[in-house]
Amino acid sequence: MALDSKYIFNHQQPEAEAMVKWLSSYGQSKHGGVSRLLYSSSWINAQHALKAKMEEIGLTTYFDSVGNLFGRLEGSNPQSPIILTGSHIDSVIDGGMYDGVYGIIASLLSVKRLIDQHGQPNKTIEVVSLCEEEGSRFPLTFWGSGNMTGRYSLKDGTRITDGDGIKLLDAMKTAGFDPEQYETPVRDDIGCFIELHVEQGITLERTNKSLGIVSHIVGQRRFNIRITGESNHAGTTPMNFRKDAMLAASHLITFINKKAQETDPQLVATTGKLTAKPNVPNVIAGEVLFTLDVRHYDEQTLDQFCQELSLFFIDYSKEHEMEIEIDQWMSVKPVMMDSTLTNHLTKIAQEKGFSYSPIVSGAGHDAQVFGTHCPTALLFVPSENGVSHSPKESTKKEDLEKGRSVLTELLYQLAYHEEG
Amino acid sequence: MALDSKYIFNHQQPEAEAMVKWLSSYGQSKHGGVSRLLYSSSWINAQHALKAKMEEIGLTTYFDSVGNLFGRLEGSNPQSPIILTGSHIDSVIDGGMYDGVYGIIASLLSVKRLIDQHGQPNKTIEVVSLCEEEGSRFPLTFWGSGNMTGRYSLKDGTRITDGDGIKLLDAMKTAGFDPEQYETPVRDDIGCFIELHVEQGITLERTNKSLGIVSHIVGQRRFNIRITGESNHAGTTPMNFRKDAMLAASHLITFINKKAQETDPQLVATTGKLTAKPNVPNVIAGEVLFTLDVRHYDEQTLDQFCQELSLFFIDYSKEHEMEIEIDQWMSVKPVMMDSTLTNHLTKIAQEKGFSYSPIVSGAGHDAQVFGTHCPTALLFVPSENGVSHSPKESTKKEDLEKGRSVLTELLYQLAYHEEG
Repeated sequence: MALDSKYIFNHQQPEAEAMVKWLSSYGQSKHGGVSRLLYSSSWINAQHALKAKMEEIGLTTYFDSVGNLFGRLEGSNPQSPIILTGSHIDSVIDGGMYDGVYGIIASLLSVKRLIDQHGQPNKTIEVVSLCEEEGSRFPLTFWGSGNMTGRYSLKDGTRITDGDGIKLLDAMKTAGFDPEQYETPVRDDIGCFIELHVEQGITLERTNKSLGIVSHIVGQRRFNIRITGESNHAGTTPMNFRKDAMLAASHLITFINKKAQETDPQLVATTGKLTAKPNVPNVIAGEVLFTLDVRHYDEQTLDQFCQELSLFFIDYSKEHEMEIEIDQWMSVKPVMMDSTLTNHLTKIAQEKGFSYSPIVSGAGHDAQVFGTHCPTALLFVPSENGVSHSPKESTKKEDLEKGRSVLTELLYQLAYHEEG
Repeated sequence: MALDSKYIFNHQQPEAEAMVKWLSSYGQSKHGGVSRLLYSSSWINAQHALKAKMEEIGLTTYFDSVGNLFGRLEGSNPQSPIILTGSHIDSVIDGGMYDGVYGIIASLLSVKRLIDQHGQPNKTIEVVSLCEEEGSRFPLTFWGSGNMTGRYSLKDGTRITDGDGIKLLDAMKTAGFDPEQYETPVRDDIGCFIELHVEQGITLERTNKSLGIVSHIVGQRRFNIRITGESNHAGTTPMNFRKDAMLAASHLITFINKKAQETDPQLVATTGKLTAKPNVPNVIAGEVLFTLDVRHYDEQTLDQFCQELSLFFIDYSKEHEMEIEIDQWMSVKPVMMDSTLTNHLTKIAQEKGFSYSPIVSGAGHDAQVFGTHCPTALLFVPSENGVSHSPKESTKKEDLEKGRSVLTELLYQLAYHEEG
């Protein structure tokens, strides 16, 4: 059940933290986290609660065909490209209350302040609650922003099912978005997209900054690496006669990490998953399969790093007479944020005297989808202890307000100061 | 069904290879291997087939209370300590046909030759088909030799069950060895034990030797090592802010292997099993659990090596602020073979012009149980490609004959030459 939000809005200036907590009552999980999966009842209820809230502050609301919710504040110049701001409403299972939601709430509160203080803008502003980013119910990320930018259309959802075998299109229909009524949600009227989000990392906290102005969203490459050695008796095979796939994996993982540290402080390379065969204590591993996740904002740096790993793997394979197979199964290019918008954000932070730093986003966001479609900005506030996708996700109240305050000012400058 | 063995015994000098193949028909598995689990019907049939064969060559046969089978050739001096020779009949699931069986067959063929050529010995010889060594049905190794040497008695089997929940003592009864009738199988009349076995390793083949005269059977220590780091987002956590348990495990495994190579060519250290948590590609591993199996023939070397690892782990733990728990769950002391018997074997190999080398056994054998009870010798023949516990297990016919020939000569010298 939703908490009573009358109290919040009766205050002159409602705060982001209170509003985030209010929305977390939709889909609250046992451990104090949030589970709000795409097209589920908690998701539907949350979208409709937001819709009511948008109308309460005077916005015109509508859903598009996939369930993205918009609250529109019409500008005096109807021909001007729209300023779009918001984030996503879906969560991972037992996730945190700030991820995505904070961006929508901050947009809503910013627009409320602008209306209260300045009335109608020159340019139209739309607050968006994107229907889906995480891909935590269906194996498809960015369904909301992807449909708005032409990356996806209805047919991309046709064969997709969730863990219970429910079809994406059936779930859409249940939620009130009948695929039979689908009209393309692609938008050609958007002038820019601005997203405010929690960092989901530890960099801002460690460097003691309240704001991170994102310059790039990293490119990602993912690999499966298979080492084939020789499975043998752990007692009767001398060390120098072994082809130990576990030792080889240890050497490669050590090299990957050393090379990553040497290459660039912004480059990250992770082996999160490893499986050995036969995986018993007294048999030398004959095969090890491990994953590699590499991220950086510069395509050329990614190319060079992966090329150097590949050369090392080939040399190692020859020297140790073990087969090493490298299977790249994901490649996402880096996306640069719009420098004009980034400069705006920097000046505003400086003028307000807030501590900030440029930052690279190591995680994916809707801003990376919009970033190839229109000028886009992404602004971070710190995550306490870097924790995210967890009920422990948290951001200090004052940082939430600083992020909201910078967003309000940016929207003011874009919608009220600039000519439509 | 057993193959017809008449042909084999009709020949003047039956060969070990033919006899091993004959016995492999009891418990033959789908892949050409052997599955002969303790007290199973294939095990019972094999013991009874061996019993018949022992009687055919003139031995007096009997079972002890746990199912060890003996074929006795009475010496002219009944007070002399018995010369015991043989090995084990049980196998791992889908194991090889030579493991254990070859030692029994070679003993049987040796005794047949000695009877044929020299008649009654001074000292009594007993050929033993030990009921169990592998521990592949019940979680208990050396049940046969352990009962003969006082390491085990009936009560040690009381709580033991197999994978299907069948009690060891019930299986014994089914096989014809009623626990109610148990009389201690401990033997105080054994003068020495001689075991001939396939190497189950690659050292003899790589060094081009036909025989390995075992000086020691290694001591073993087994550990579980748990590293606790911090699980974090693979994209948003810079390399220098990580506590990556997978990287730590890679460093430790690399160190273990390097240190093992530096310490002694006979020392082996193996990490065969590793499990990571949460074990997903885009999350830094927060916990890694891996095994360590260390073997060497010298207790002091084992002590020192394990101590050095421990110190390194403590330093690493402090430097990287990660918890490292070391749990030692197995410790088996090294066993030295009898030097008089070993010298005998060396002289015989030299006189016969067979290539041989002293060797350390990295695997456990019944000889290590007898080695703490009476003077014991263990002789190896090569395993092709070092393969064992597999249907692919194989030893060249000429090496099988050389091993049998040295055993025959040793038994001759011990039983016919030496005074009873």
